[in-house]
Amino acid sequence: MSSTFGTLFRVTTFGESHCRGVGAVIDGCPSNMPLTEADIQPQLDRRRPGQSRLSTDRSEADTVTILSGVENGRTLGTPVALLVANKDQRPGDYTAMRDIPRPSHADFTYQEKYGIRAASGGGRSSARETIGRVAAGAVAEKYLRETFGVEIVAWVSGVGTITAPWPDMDTIGRDQVDNNPVRCPDVSIAAEMIGRVEQARADKDSVGGIVSCVCRHLPVGLGEPVFDKLEARLAQAMLSIPATKGFEVGSGFAGARMSGSAHNDPFVKKGSGLGTVTNHSGGIQGGISNGEPLFFRVAFKPPATIGIPQKTVDFSGNDVVLEAGGRHDPCVVPRAVPIVETMAAQVLADLALCQKRLAGHRSGGSR
Amino acid sequence: MSSTFGTLFRVTTFGESHCRGVGAVIDGCPSNMPLTEADIQPQLDRRRPGQSRLSTDRSEADTVTILSGVENGRTLGTPVALLVANKDQRPGDYTAMRDIPRPSHADFTYQEKYGIRAASGGGRSSARETIGRVAAGAVAEKYLRETFGVEIVAWVSGVGTITAPWPDMDTIGRDQVDNNPVRCPDVSIAAEMIGRVEQARADKDSVGGIVSCVCRHLPVGLGEPVFDKLEARLAQAMLSIPATKGFEVGSGFAGARMSGSAHNDPFVKKGSGLGTVTNHSGGIQGGISNGEPLFFRVAFKPPATIGIPQKTVDFSGNDVVLEAGGRHDPCVVPRAVPIVETMAAQVLADLALCQKRLAGHRSGGSR
Amino acid sequence: MSSTFGTLFRVTTFGESHCRGVGAVIDGCPSNMPLTEADIQPQLDRRRPGQSRLSTDRSEADTVTILSGVENGRTLGTPVALLVANKDQRPGDYTAMRDIPRPSHADFTYQEKYGIRAASGGGRSSARETIGRVAAGAVAEKYLRETFGVEIVAWVSGVGTITAPWPDMDTIGRDQVDNNPVRCPDVSIAAEMIGRVEQARADKDSVGGIVSCVCRHLPVGLGEPVFDKLEARLAQAMLSIPATKGFEVGSGFAGARMSGSAHNDPFVKKGSGLGTVTNHSGGIQGGISNGEPLFFRVAFKPPATIGIPQKTVDFSGNDVVLEAGGRHDPCVVPRAVPIVETMAAQVLADLALCQKRLAGHRSGGSR
Amino acid sequence: MSSTFGTLFRVTTFGESHCRGVGAVIDGCPSNMPLTEADIQPQLDRRRPGQSRLSTDRSEADTVTILSGVENGRTLGTPVALLVANKDQRPGDYTAMRDIPRPSHADFTYQEKYGIRAASGGGRSSARETIGRVAAGAVAEKYLRETFGVEIVAWVSGVGTITAPWPDMDTIGRDQVDNNPVRCPDVSIAAEMIGRVEQARADKDSVGGIVSCVCRHLPVGLGEPVFDKLEARLAQAMLSIPATKGFEVGSGFAGARMSGSAHNDPFVKKGSGLGTVTNHSGGIQGGISNGEPLFFRVAFKPPATIGIPQKTVDFSGNDVVLEAGGRHDPCVVPRAVPIVETMAAQVLADLALCQKRLAGHRSGGSR
Repeated sequence: MSSTFGTLFRVTTFGESHCRGVGAVIDGCPSNMPLTEADIQPQLDRRRPGQSRLSTDRSEADTVTILSGVENGRTLGTPVALLVANKDQRPGDYTAMRDIPRPSHADFTYQEKYGIRAASGGGRSSARETIGRVAAGAVAEKYLRETFGVEIVAWVSGVGTITAPWPDMDTIGRDQVDNNPVRCPDVSIAAEMIGRVEQARADKDSVGGIVSCVCRHLPVGLGEPVFDKLEARLAQAMLSIPATKGFEVGSGFAGARMSGSAHNDPFVKKGSGLGTVTNHSGGIQGGISNGEPLFFRVAFKPPATIGIPQKTVDFSGNDVVLEAGGRHDPCVVPRAVPIVETMAAQVLADLALCQKRLAGHRSGGSR
Repeated sequence: MSSTFGTLFRVTTFGESHCRGVGAVIDGCPSNMPLTEADIQPQLDRRRPGQSRLSTDRSEADTVTILSGVENGRTLGTPVALLVANKDQRPGDYTAMRDIPRPSHADFTYQEKYGIRAASGGGRSSARETIGRVAAGAVAEKYLRETFGVEIVAWVSGVGTITAPWPDMDTIGRDQVDNNPVRCPDVSIAAEMIGRVEQARADKDSVGGIVSCVCRHLPVGLGEPVFDKLEARLAQAMLSIPATKGFEVGSGFAGARMSGSAHNDPFVKKGSGLGTVTNHSGGIQGGISNGEPLFFRVAFKPPATIGIPQKTVDFSGNDVVLEAGGRHDPCVVPRAVPIVETMAAQVLADLALCQKRLAGHRSGGSR
Repeated sequence: MSSTFGTLFRVTTFGESHCRGVGAVIDGCPSNMPLTEADIQPQLDRRRPGQSRLSTDRSEADTVTILSGVENGRTLGTPVALLVANKDQRPGDYTAMRDIPRPSHADFTYQEKYGIRAASGGGRSSARETIGRVAAGAVAEKYLRETFGVEIVAWVSGVGTITAPWPDMDTIGRDQVDNNPVRCPDVSIAAEMIGRVEQARADKDSVGGIVSCVCRHLPVGLGEPVFDKLEARLAQAMLSIPATKGFEVGSGFAGARMSGSAHNDPFVKKGSGLGTVTNHSGGIQGGISNGEPLFFRVAFKPPATIGIPQKTVDFSGNDVVLEAGGRHDPCVVPRAVPIVETMAAQVLADLALCQKRLAGHRSGGSR
Repeated sequence: MSSTFGTLFRVTTFGESHCRGVGAVIDGCPSNMPLTEADIQPQLDRRRPGQSRLSTDRSEADTVTILSGVENGRTLGTPVALLVANKDQRPGDYTAMRDIPRPSHADFTYQEKYGIRAASGGGRSSARETIGRVAAGAVAEKYLRETFGVEIVAWVSGVGTITAPWPDMDTIGRDQVDNNPVRCPDVSIAAEMIGRVEQARADKDSVGGIVSCVCRHLPVGLGEPVFDKLEARLAQAMLSIPATKGFEVGSGFAGARMSGSAHNDPFVKKGSGLGTVTNHSGGIQGGISNGEPLFFRVAFKPPATIGIPQKTVDFSGNDVVLEAGGRHDPCVVPRAVPIVETMAAQVLADLALCQKRLAGHRSGGSR
C-alpha cells in the first residue's frame, strides 16, 4: 500500500520488473462507454522504451489485454482489469548487485522498509510500474475527451540546462510533440536537446529534464477543497511518478516573485460566462478549475543508473566501486510525456465524477 | 469533501471565516500520549495574524479547546476534537462584493461549484481554514518529536525577488526563524525582505514568497509506494495550503538541469548504518525516507486582496472597478511557516503509523 | 480510527461520556440545502434518556449547535460541524470501578487495545457516542426526504421474548411509533413490553430487544457492488451501534429456511416501471435497491449494566463481586429507534450521492 | 466501485462470468512472507462447483496464478495480483433472457443502475465474482495462521428447516467439515441435509441455508471503534457475499430475548490474563476482540435460479413465463463455507495490521 489512487475513478496498479505482468484495475469506470484495447495501446506505445535511438533498446511489445469490465466493446460499470505481460520474467541477472545499494536508487530504502527487495533492484520502483498507470489513465482520457472534450497535451520543455519557451497553449497538440524523438515541439530546441541526450549517452552519464502539460476544455468546478484541491491532487499524482522532484502550476515558483497587482487575473466576459484576461492561476482558483486552460510543469531528476564508475559502499558499509552494465536511458523525460498526461487524466476524471454529486444543486443561493 | 487527510492519523478540518468556529478532529491519534492545549497553542499563535506590523492587525486570540479524546492530560486513542471559536461571526460586511467575483479569489469557482458561497467571500478558502490544520498538525509534531526525536523547521527563504541562501540544515531552529517578523533566519536578508513587504503595503499591493522546510531525524522507511510516496503526500499536503503554486523536494527543479553523475548520492557508512555523502535526493529515495534530512520548498503567490483598484467584471459580465477596503496582509509567507511545518508533521505522523504495520517483518530476505 | 463513515456523505464523530462535548463533522453535505438546528434537534430529543419512566432519568438537554458549514440557513457545501455539550464533565465518580473490568462492557478490551481507558468506563463505548451519529444522520434524513421523498421509520418489534408482528409497512409512521414509551406501534403488545421492562427494572436486571426499520420511496440503483452493496453497508452501520448482535434484511434468517420457488419475487408492472409481487428481497437485489420498500431488523443484547451483584475478577485476576450503583436503562431499544433510523439515513444518503456519478450513462446498452 | 475492501490489507477484486478472468489485487500484504499458489489453491478448490453431486457440474479448474508481488516464493510488500482464467468466455448462450429480468436476480437492478448489464445476466453478481475474494482471503488466512496461530473454521449449520447444533467450538476443524458433501460436521444431520438438497434438485427448486463460523486464537484488541468495530466489519464482509440475508454474532438474535444477568460474561483468570466464563459476546466486547473464540452465523437465501416455470414480466412489463434451462446449484451453502472463511480472514488480517500501529503504547495509563 498504497497502490490505489482516486475516490470514484479508483485505480489500483500492480506489478514489478520481472514478475509475470504489470497492470491496473479501474474501479468506478463509468458504464456504457465504448472501450477496447485500441483505446489504450497508443499511450502504452508512446511510453514504451526502444522507440528511438534516444532511449534504451530493450524491446518489449507491452501489449495490453482487457481482462474484465468490458463486454461487446462497452464498459459494464464493473472493475476494468488491464494486464501487460512481462516478456522477461527472470530476475536472475542482477545478482552482482545483491549486496550493493545503488546510489540514488530505491534499493536501500526498499530493503529497510520491507526487509526484502526484488532481486532485480528496480522492482516496484522500476519504470515498468508506470505501465499500469498509463493504461488506466488512457481510459480516463477517453472518458474526459468524449464527455467534455478535454484535451491533455504534455511535452518536454527542458533537458538539462536547455529550456523551451511556452508554446501556444491553445493549439499545441500531440502531433507536434511527437514530431521528434525528444518530444519538444520547438524543432530547433529539440535538436539541441537531442544533442544533449546523445552527449550524456556518450559520456555514460544521464541528464534530467522538465515535462510541461496543458489541459484544455475542463468543466468549471473540478477540485474538492480542502485536501483534494485540484492542484493538490495533481501534485500528488505527479510526485508519485518515479524520478520526479518538483511540481508547479500556473505561475509556479515564478509567481512567488511577483506582486499581486501583476499576478491577479481580472475577470472578463467570455461567451455566456466568465473567463480571465490573464491566467497566472493556471486554470485553478481556490483549488477548483475555473474553465481556463490548466497548465503545470514537472521536474525529473537525471536517471540514477549511469555507466560511469561510482564510489559507494555495500550494505555492510565496505567501500566498493559500482559500474552499471547494460544499456539504460540517459534521459527519461520523452517517455515521461504520456505518463504525465495519463496521471493528469486520472485526477481529472476522478474529480469530474466527484463533481457530478453536486449536479442540480438548488439555485437561489447568496450569489 | 474532501476535508479529511491521512490514512491512520486522519485529520478532518471544518469551519470558515464567519461561522461559530473552526477546528479539526484527529481520528487515530496514538493513545496514552500526554496532551494539553499548551502543546497546540504555540503553533496557533505563530500562525495568528496581528503578530507584527508585517501582517494584518485583525486581532483574534485563536485559543484552542480540546473537546474530546483526552482525559487527565492523556490521549485515550479516541478522536481528538479541537475547536477555536471565531470572534467575528457576522458575515454582514461583505455585501458590497456579493455581485463581484474578486480576481484570483475563489468567489467565482465556489459559486459555480456549489451554487452558493459564503457571503464573506473567503469562506472555506479563507486563511482561517488553516487553523484546524495547524492545531491538528501540532499534535502530530508532538508525537513525532517524542517518539522519534523528529525536528521540523520551516522559514521564509524568499519574498518577491529577494532570496535567502540555504541555512545550515543540521542546526537551523525555530528560535532563529522567529528572530525577526519576516521569519528569515538570515538577518540581513530579513531586513531587505521586511523592506519589500513594507513597500508592498505602502503601494496597496502584495508580494509572494517561498517557504523552505527541513525535517531531521526521520526514521528510515516512511512513505508508501506508489501513490503515497513520501514526496507525493507532501506535495498534496503543501499544494492544499491556500495560495500555493509549487513544491520541490531535494534538488527540485534545479535537479532537472543536472547530470546523473553529479546528482547521485553515493552511500557511506554512518554510525551503525548507511547514509549518503551528498543529499540531492532530499532524504527520499524511491518514495521512502532514507534517514537523511528531508527538505523541500513551497511557492506562495502574492495575496489576491490588494488595495489598488482593479478593472474586472461582475457575475453578469458588466465592467466594474474593484477597490478592496480594510487591512490585509501584503505578504502571507511569514504566517505560512507554521502551516507548512504542521502539514509536514501530519504527513510524517501518518506515514510513521503506517510503517508500524511492517514492524517485525521477518528477516532473511534476498538482501 | 475509524470514526469516519461514508464515501461522499462522510460523517466523522467524536466525543465520549465526560469530555467537553460530543458531535460530528459531515464532509460532503450537499450545498444549498436549507438547514438549521431545528432540523436536527427532534431526533436528538427522541434519542435522549429521561423521556419516560422506561429509561434512565439522567437529565441532559443535548442541545445541538451547528458550528460551521451553514450560512443564512443554507448549507455551503463545506463541512457541517455539529456539537452537543456534555453537562457532566467530571469523570470522577467511577473510581471504584478503576480496577474491575465490568462484565460484557468494553473496559477490558479498551484497556488492552489502547493501554488506557476513560475513567468513566464507558468512554467512547458509552451511549453518548451515538449523539454524533444521530445529529449527522438527521441531516442525511432531511436530504433524502427533500430530494426523493424517502421515509425512514423504525420501531421496537421485540423486547425479551415478546415479539410484535410486522405492521403495515406502507403506512407505518413515527407518530404511531411514538404513541407509547416503548415505541412499539402495536398498542397491546406495547403494554406487554412495558411490563417486561418494568419487571427488569424491579429485578435490577435488564432485557434485550429488536428494532425493525422500513425505508420507503428509495430511488432504484442505490448500492455499490461488491463490497459496498446496500445491505453490506447497512449491516456495517447497524453492527457499529453499541449493543447490537445481529442484522437481517428482507426475509433474513427465515429466508434461509425457504425454497427458491417460495422466496423468489416475480416482477410485475408498477406505474411506468417494474415492481415485484412479493418482497422477500427486502427491496434489494444484487446489492442494489430495486424501488420496493427496504426493511431490516437489528438485534440488541440486554444492557450490561445491572444492579444484581455479579461474581467476576479484577484486572489482576482476583475474585470480586460487582454491584452497579446509580440508575441505568433496563432496556435500550426504545432509544435505539432514532439511532437505527439515522444510521440508515447516512448509508442511503451516501449511496444516493455515489449513484449520481452514473447519472446520464448512455442508453443503448445490451438490455 | 466499490470493489476494494480493507484499510491496510486492501483487497480489490475484478471479473465477471464470461470475461477473460477473475481475480484480486492485495495491496498491503505483509512483506517477506512465504507465499506460492499452493497456499491459495486449496480454498479455491473448496469453493469450486462440481465437487460433488450436490452442486452444479459445470467443470472449471479455477487454477490461480500469482502475477506479481512475490519473488522466489516470498512476498515483496508490493501488490500481490492473483488471476484465475475463465474457461468459458462466450457470453452468448443467454440471449433468450436478454429481455427478461429474472426474479430475485440482479438483472433488473444492474440494468437500472448502470444502463447496461452483462449479457450472461450474472455478470458481476454471479458466483464467479467470489473467486477473487477467496484467493485474496486465503493469503490473509496464511498471514493470520503463521503470525498468531489463528484458526478459522466455517461449516453448514442449516439447510432449509434442518438445523445442526453448535459443535465443540474449541476443536471443530476443516477435516470434519469436509467429511461430507454438505459440509455439516454432524454426520446424521448432514445426511438429512443431503436428502433435502437432493429433493430440491428433483423438484427443480432450490433451498437456503446457514453457514456458521468460528475464529480461534485471535489476539486481543482487534476492531476499530466506532465504525470499524470488529462485528461491523464482519457484518459488511458477510452481507457483501452474494445471496446473504442476515448476520449474527455471539448470542445474536437469541441474545435479544435474554436478560442481562443471563447474558453477561463474567471475567475469570485464564493463563496469564483474563478470559470470560461464558461467551455470549462471541469474542467481541465494545467492538474489539477479547481473546475468546469469535463466532457468527450467516443466512443465505435459496438460489434464485430454479427450473420450475415462473410467472413474471419482461422489461417492458409484458407477462411471460420463465423457465431456466441448464443445471444449477439447488443449494449454495456448502460452497459458501470457504467464502465465509476467507472474508472473515480479510477482516481479521486488516484489523490485525491496523492494531500494530498501537504497539508499544506507553503503559502507566489510568487503569
